[in-house]
Amino acid sequence: MANKVKEAWKSGKAVVNGWLAIPSAFSAEMYSQCGWDSVTVDMQHGVQDYLSCVACFQGMQPSGVTPMVRVPWNEPGIIGKVLDAGAYGVICPMVNTPEEARALVQYSKYPPAGTRSNGPIRAGAYGSSGGYQKTANDEILVIPMIETKQAIENIDAILDVPGIDGIYVGPSDLSFSYGKEPKLDVEDPFILEIYDKLLAACASRGISAGLHNGTAAYANRMIKKGFKLVTIANEVGLMVAAAKAAVKEAKA
Amino acid sequence: MANKVKEAWKSGKAVVNGWLAIPSAFSAEMYSQCGWDSVTVDMQHGVQDYLSCVACFQGMQPSGVTPMVRVPWNEPGIIGKVLDAGAYGVICPMVNTPEEARALVQYSKYPPAGTRSNGPIRAGAYGSSGGYQKTANDEILVIPMIETKQAIENIDAILDVPGIDGIYVGPSDLSFSYGKEPKLDVEDPFILEIYDKLLAACASRGISAGLHNGTAAYANRMIKKGFKLVTIANEVGLMVAAAKAAVKEAKA
Amino acid sequence: MANKVKEAWKSGKAVVNGWLAIPSAFSAEMYSQCGWDSVTVDMQHGVQDYLSCVACFQGMQPSGVTPMVRVPWNEPGIIGKVLDAGAYGVICPMVNTPEEARALVQYSKYPPAGTRSNGPIRAGAYGSSGGYQKTANDEILVIPMIETKQAIENIDAILDVPGIDGIYVGPSDLSFSYGKEPKLDVEDPFILEIYDKLLAACASRGISAGLHNGTAAYANRMIKKGFKLVTIANEVGLMVAAAKAAVKEAKA
Amino acid sequence: MANKVKEAWKSGKAVVNGWLAIPSAFSAEMYSQCGWDSVTVDMQHGVQDYLSCVACFQGMQPSGVTPMVRVPWNEPGIIGKVLDAGAYGVICPMVNTPEEARALVQYSKYPPAGTRSNGPIRAGAYGSSGGYQKTANDEILVIPMIETKQAIENIDAILDVPGIDGIYVGPSDLSFSYGKEPKLDVEDPFILEIYDKLLAACASRGISAGLHNGTAAYANRMIKKGFKLVTIANEVGLMVAAAKAAVKEAKA
Amino acid sequence: MANKVKEAWKSGKAVVNGWLAIPSAFSAEMYSQCGWDSVTVDMQHGVQDYLSCVACFQGMQPSGVTPMVRVPWNEPGIIGKVLDAGAYGVICPMVNTPEEARALVQYSKYPPAGTRSNGPIRAGAYGSSGGYQKTANDEILVIPMIETKQAIENIDAILDVPGIDGIYVGPSDLSFSYGKEPKLDVEDPFILEIYDKLLAACASRGISAGLHNGTAAYANRMIKKGFKLVTIANEVGLMVAAAKAAVKEAKA
Amino acid sequence: MANKVKEAWKSGKAVVNGWLAIPSAFSAEMYSQCGWDSVTVDMQHGVQDYLSCVACFQGMQPSGVTPMVRVPWNEPGIIGKVLDAGAYGVICPMVNTPEEARALVQYSKYPPAGTRSNGPIRAGAYGSSGGYQKTANDEILVIPMIETKQAIENIDAILDVPGIDGIYVGPSDLSFSYGKEPKLDVEDPFILEIYDKLLAACASRGISAGLHNGTAAYANRMIKKGFKLVTIANEVGLMVAAAKAAVKEAKA
Repeated sequence: MANKVKEAWKSGKAVVNGWLAIPSAFSAEMYSQCGWDSVTVDMQHGVQDYLSCVACFQGMQPSGVTPMVRVPWNEPGIIGKVLDAGAYGVICPMVNTPEEARALVQYSKYPPAGTRSNGPIRAGAYGSSGGYQKTANDEILVIPMIETKQAIENIDAILDVPGIDGIYVGPSDLSFSYGKEPKLDVEDPFILEIYDKLLAACASRGISAGLHNGTAAYANRMIKKGFKLVTIANEVGLMVAAAKAAVKEAKA
Repeated sequence: MANKVKEAWKSGKAVVNGWLAIPSAFSAEMYSQCGWDSVTVDMQHGVQDYLSCVACFQGMQPSGVTPMVRVPWNEPGIIGKVLDAGAYGVICPMVNTPEEARALVQYSKYPPAGTRSNGPIRAGAYGSSGGYQKTANDEILVIPMIETKQAIENIDAILDVPGIDGIYVGPSDLSFSYGKEPKLDVEDPFILEIYDKLLAACASRGISAGLHNGTAAYANRMIKKGFKLVTIANEVGLMVAAAKAAVKEAKA
Repeated sequence: MANKVKEAWKSGKAVVNGWLAIPSAFSAEMYSQCGWDSVTVDMQHGVQDYLSCVACFQGMQPSGVTPMVRVPWNEPGIIGKVLDAGAYGVICPMVNTPEEARALVQYSKYPPAGTRSNGPIRAGAYGSSGGYQKTANDEILVIPMIETKQAIENIDAILDVPGIDGIYVGPSDLSFSYGKEPKLDVEDPFILEIYDKLLAACASRGISAGLHNGTAAYANRMIKKGFKLVTIANEVGLMVAAAKAAVKEAKA
Repeated sequence: MANKVKEAWKSGKAVVNGWLAIPSAFSAEMYSQCGWDSVTVDMQHGVQDYLSCVACFQGMQPSGVTPMVRVPWNEPGIIGKVLDAGAYGVICPMVNTPEEARALVQYSKYPPAGTRSNGPIRAGAYGSSGGYQKTANDEILVIPMIETKQAIENIDAILDVPGIDGIYVGPSDLSFSYGKEPKLDVEDPFILEIYDKLLAACASRGISAGLHNGTAAYANRMIKKGFKLVTIANEVGLMVAAAKAAVKEAKA
Repeated sequence: MANKVKEAWKSGKAVVNGWLAIPSAFSAEMYSQCGWDSVTVDMQHGVQDYLSCVACFQGMQPSGVTPMVRVPWNEPGIIGKVLDAGAYGVICPMVNTPEEARALVQYSKYPPAGTRSNGPIRAGAYGSSGGYQKTANDEILVIPMIETKQAIENIDAILDVPGIDGIYVGPSDLSFSYGKEPKLDVEDPFILEIYDKLLAACASRGISAGLHNGTAAYANRMIKKGFKLVTIANEVGLMVAAAKAAVKEAKA
Repeated sequence: MANKVKEAWKSGKAVVNGWLAIPSAFSAEMYSQCGWDSVTVDMQHGVQDYLSCVACFQGMQPSGVTPMVRVPWNEPGIIGKVLDAGAYGVICPMVNTPEEARALVQYSKYPPAGTRSNGPIRAGAYGSSGGYQKTANDEILVIPMIETKQAIENIDAILDVPGIDGIYVGPSDLSFSYGKEPKLDVEDPFILEIYDKLLAACASRGISAGLHNGTAAYANRMIKKGFKLVTIANEVGLMVAAAKAAVKEAKA
């Protein structure tokens, strides 16, 4: 199966990414058929763990979306496990220094690029015809989250770490770390200026930048601004918003 | 905890009901906080079984919505189990004859009204102060589904069965049984005329009629028409519609 | 593995039986090591289904207690499944007529005694050395619950059904069906007199009678009265009572 | 997705069918990629229930095998549920009379052929382009098990029931009902003669016959004999046999 | 929902805390209604993981007890996840140095006090009206376990770390680290003297001390001695003790 | 229960070890009865997490095989948890330095040998009569994986760490780290020479060496070569191979 995110990025296009917080293969199955290019299981803030991630991956497999994971932390055990489960991309929270970025690359890549252990239990079954182990280092996207003041200050050193394919910006944590209210779909010029700098720093290195968004309208603006991967809330957020609207309309 | 559906019906009001197909306590928890008066776990067509129903009930308990179940079939084992789990209402598919309606009442009520067995394992913990067993027969709603030509032909005999609190109309099965395309939010005058007859037959007996709907707009119309319980799709349907719209807007 | 209940009954002894409502193999594992002769998974009023029953059986296997099940209803599908899972006894609720008793025996026994289907997926692994299928009809106890006025009136005809090994009395349903308050550990002379008649009717046929109890003290009395299987509440009831007492003492 | 079993049967070919007893989507996923034409979740004797069946279906979806179910019993609730989950064939145990066969057809087909209720929650997502409800009655195979003396005696009447696509023979139950030892891969001429009669009775009506086998060698013979669907043990049986052989060889 | 532990501590009162080892929402639900002020999911030594913790939290939510967690280790990934799930307190094992205590505070608090990432998926739904993120740093209790010789030697430096609300003493590990038998409800004067020193060191800083106990009687003594949070065994321990006593009494 | 691996090693014998990737207690239960001396739950590359490991342990308990775990990483939280669950051996991946080996020993042993925390929730129930805590440090095997060039270079220092009972060689990672194709059942003289050196280094210290193998034939050779623990693929690998062969034979 091709990595649709990688392909889009190669051709300079943006992808629209889904986000899973509900630990249900059925929910993931239905949601993955809605037009997303990729769908990410959120093991950090979502109600997800390793086995629910595997279940969600199974649910989304027939849809052809590219499966990715946001891991709970920059830790080799869980990064290896989600890759073995078939993740085509690892989004890792709170990567604030080049050392942390290097560790992330190490955990995510087979030798000689890294120290990932061999055993792609589920990934191997869906790997490319060239052999999963031979193509994994190229195919799988390593995407540190840039979401703190410290990361912004270290951005050039982080982006210079070999093996980084993209970055993912968490707006609420970024705002939080600058002493601002944690929220999505930021209009604060200070934060938007940071986005511009990040986009420029990425562009100069051929790295793609992604952003977490609260609404499709904002995500659409951010694609036009230059972000190459935009997420829109998560599946439970969309469901809750739709349910509230439906109740209101029915009771009108 | 009061039965909000029963209270609303006593005062002639309509309730807006949610519908759960995803077997996840977390999904149910978030969805139940969206303003629904009641939320029904769909054990017939939803991806639900008894233990997922219990989990959904636990997830929705803090919200204060009234928990109900659509059972998979008119069968005493599962009806007893969902009542023990804490259902305040049993919606039962394909009740086509007064005999089936009587059986449903029997399964749902304690002696002397019925033959339900005593052991409200979870229900007892949240029962009224008067003692669960003393109030259950009054509090718990027995709601046969009227969704076939046969049921329509038997409607008076069905509604005359003592212990029936309401009916629930399944539009797609009803249309199907008359040789029409199975669908929700019907505009076919033939079916709408049946609705009128049902509403009249119910109203004359103090029984409330419910309807499954595809959209909030149609549900709103049906409240005005006289239905006292309207469901809007289910949680996964709302999520899928919202996700498709979000993807489309983001990619615009 | 020997059927300890059968062995005890053969020698005229009574067994003390545990009762599982919590769907957890770990809980079952710890509880089964407390001295019970047999432990019954309560699929009727407990928070249990087929897969949780299998898990509980796995948890209790090392303890050597005899595993039994109270099925949710007198239905061939689930009776076959719990026997395949390894139940050594089937306690079936609401057996009120000899026809229902005959059906229960049919569902529980291999040909020619009954119509149980062959496929003891888990039971076969722990069956006797003579071959599970050859000994199952003899080893597995068929135990209808006698818990309604109707059953009492039909008691001789029910007990005369070939293949009935024991009966199990549900005091709260029995009281309920006579218009009395549903409760355990009954002191009502009317009900106690029924117990005497049941014990006599059983004794004359070599059938053993069991009883559900709320407390160990009452269970002890009932053994002395002639009951050959006594259950004491269930595991969650014991836990709740102990927890309330502990909180009270700690706060004193 | 096409029904590979139906297609093969149309062209007179036999299919090799897998059988799932382990309630694991991962196990089902790996097993379904081994070359089977169809894979059946065994809800009767396997350690399976409705939600594990859904999980197994999700696991096997990418492989393209045709998913089928052996239901625990001829009961409308569970038959409707597994069809909604996406089963392309229903194998139903212990169908002994034409009445039972007619009931099975009723439960399995939408009006006007039957009384199946509309709501293909998962099946609808993978249905044919013509619309799931329009093609389901034609696409989904209804396959009663012929596994008792009574069924053999009623075979013509059973096969004459409209809507029967095939039969499935359970050798161990069939032998059991004739007072013989319950086993697979039978060489008993009496039973083999029954097979011949069944094959002839099926062939004359354009109905396909399936058989449960213990070994691939026997299954191969049975294809040559005329059976159009052969199952080989189940996944756990194959695993256990392989494991025992491996241990033996390693310790040699 | 108010943090009952924090409120009690503010007014100088002690709380009685429950402890969950069984990974079951139902068990947690029933247990949480027994009078505990708070109930802690034990992810270190209990049979618990992240998703079972979420399930237990859902089960205990209606009871109003304050939910807390003992995390398996002082690791940012899991600490963030249990806080997002709604924990009002984090009890962390084996905090032996001020560096480890500082790390624990960092992981547990939002900026600027710490580096916790924003995304209170379940916690946000039950947060205070002032907004979860604004009150979390104040409301959520950070409670290192003091349970080794090293921790005792570093106690002043540990307690001086800003953000520590309480300590929790693990008597068996503490005894173990001093070369004594690991056990609860210690009477060893050497250990009791350590308790006195800990209580004094805490009291002088306005920090509350908690203790794990085996019996309610000992817990009661420890409240009187000055401990402000006492746990009594765990739910499975209470159940096992009650079951053993019941069997013994029934068989007497 | 005795540690069969330890006993065999004491007497210089080799053990044949099973390997579990399927997260199912039932699968583990059947597989554990195939003649293995020990069975290891693979939490690194298998589809396993902590709760599935507990379930597998429960499934395998009656078989008497010695339960072991390959942990996902050298991390104290998970090592403590699997030991509490009842592991008799910890196989830890990627131990490349003596420091890492020392950490592994620390995490795995009670004071004074290590810093493992007391609370053997499930292990305690099956511990030796002398008391689990008194015998655990002796009984439980600590087995670092030697699977990188770095580990080979540090082998003497690693093996000199007190508390190491054995090593486990991962051939595919070892080959990978030397720039060779990652595979099992290696015939490459360079790697085989490393095996010889490892065996000699182990033998001189009374440490046993284990090896992961793809086939029983190769495992048999490796026992003869001097390995004292040989694993043969895993349960899902054996199943898949058997299934492919069965399909092929049936279709022949």
